[in-house]
Amino acid sequence: MIVYGRNVAKEVLKSDKKIEKIILKDGFDDREILSLVEKRNLPVEKWTKKEFSKFDKFSHQGIVLYVEDFKYTNLLELIGNDSSLIVILDHLEDPHNLGAIIRTCEAAGVNGIIIPKNRSVEVTSTVIKTSAGATENVKIAQVVNLAQAIKKLKDNGYWIVGTDMENSTDYRKIDYRGKIALIIGSEGFGISNLVKQNCDFIASIPMFGKINSLNASVAAGIMIYEVIRQRK
Amino acid sequence: MIVYGRNVAKEVLKSDKKIEKIILKDGFDDREILSLVEKRNLPVEKWTKKEFSKFDKFSHQGIVLYVEDFKYTNLLELIGNDSSLIVILDHLEDPHNLGAIIRTCEAAGVNGIIIPKNRSVEVTSTVIKTSAGATENVKIAQVVNLAQAIKKLKDNGYWIVGTDMENSTDYRKIDYRGKIALIIGSEGFGISNLVKQNCDFIASIPMFGKINSLNASVAAGIMIYEVIRQRK
Repeated sequence: MIVYGRNVAKEVLKSDKKIEKIILKDGFDDREILSLVEKRNLPVEKWTKKEFSKFDKFSHQGIVLYVEDFKYTNLLELIGNDSSLIVILDHLEDPHNLGAIIRTCEAAGVNGIIIPKNRSVEVTSTVIKTSAGATENVKIAQVVNLAQAIKKLKDNGYWIVGTDMENSTDYRKIDYRGKIALIIGSEGFGISNLVKQNCDFIASIPMFGKINSLNASVAAGIMIYEVIRQRK
Repeated sequence: MIVYGRNVAKEVLKSDKKIEKIILKDGFDDREILSLVEKRNLPVEKWTKKEFSKFDKFSHQGIVLYVEDFKYTNLLELIGNDSSLIVILDHLEDPHNLGAIIRTCEAAGVNGIIIPKNRSVEVTSTVIKTSAGATENVKIAQVVNLAQAIKKLKDNGYWIVGTDMENSTDYRKIDYRGKIALIIGSEGFGISNLVKQNCDFIASIPMFGKINSLNASVAAGIMIYEVIRQRK
């Protein structure tokens, strides 16, 4: 797959991800990246502005890397200690939301992310770019069956907290100490009924307007940082 | 300008915004919207799938409206009472971030948003779509000079809280009672030096990863809901 942009390039070059080749636009002069490239001793091609224009549909900032596909983690590898936090994304569709959530999870030190295999956005080039390269530092598991994955987490001592407006508790009044798995619903439909039935708590973020819905990545950020607040 | 999508259509039809005409794709059957359209007695065109395909670069969900341009508010109209909260966006570039922030501000009951006139994203069709139509319910002022706008807010009793990583206080340790103006920096450069000099407090969100940066709309959401927490 291809990845692009300076932040992404930095993270990929610092990681142990396999890089097939790097293409730089004529005049590319980011010293930090050029020094990382030199250290790794990788095949580099310099393309003219005209040649490079084939990448202009991406916000590439003058650098494109051909790398191995994103490697998902096994669900069991996400399971952590008593203060573990896992984020489950219930059929998100928007790559920008997935990228922003991965970025938040990296910054917040979340143990891992779970996404379903079908009817869900995957880790694509756009997601990697939107995550600012955070995909290299966060474990992401892709599972066939979300309900079964939740059951496995419960078996391992996790409390499951869903997010929804109905029959819910103010998100600030839930106790997030212990192992927690937070479920964020899809942009259009929220969390599915089957998943909801498996939740120990349903949290909602209070709203005071007429429309009263938050972008999925914003809602995830508010919830994740509430967990962190309680654990500080 | 044109606006599109079902959520946006609903909000626009409920508002007093001038609507020139509405174009529906053949088979459009959202009853709530059709009933709102009927009430307003507006010119409606029904286009075939092929004719409508000229809008396919937008995620239109079968409805496009030609409406008057977005109306910005005068800065002074944003000034509120003792628990007023204003959000200032210091040269944001990404329409998706602006849309998501407007949506958060609507849900959180923020009094208004200030954006600069130059080198900043404006309220475009994409912003309106990303805001889920929240642009109809939030006051937004566009100012020539951000530093002067901040001065005016100070003269009206506002405390100015910037966001930055350096020389900053944990965002949870700042007292947000009283009139507050929160400044969110641009995606690439954060808040500018001139703006920073005018801040009473600089807040930072604690991070624990390697990359340690949040999407601007996620950071705004976390900050805004911290202000709300303290005021509940």
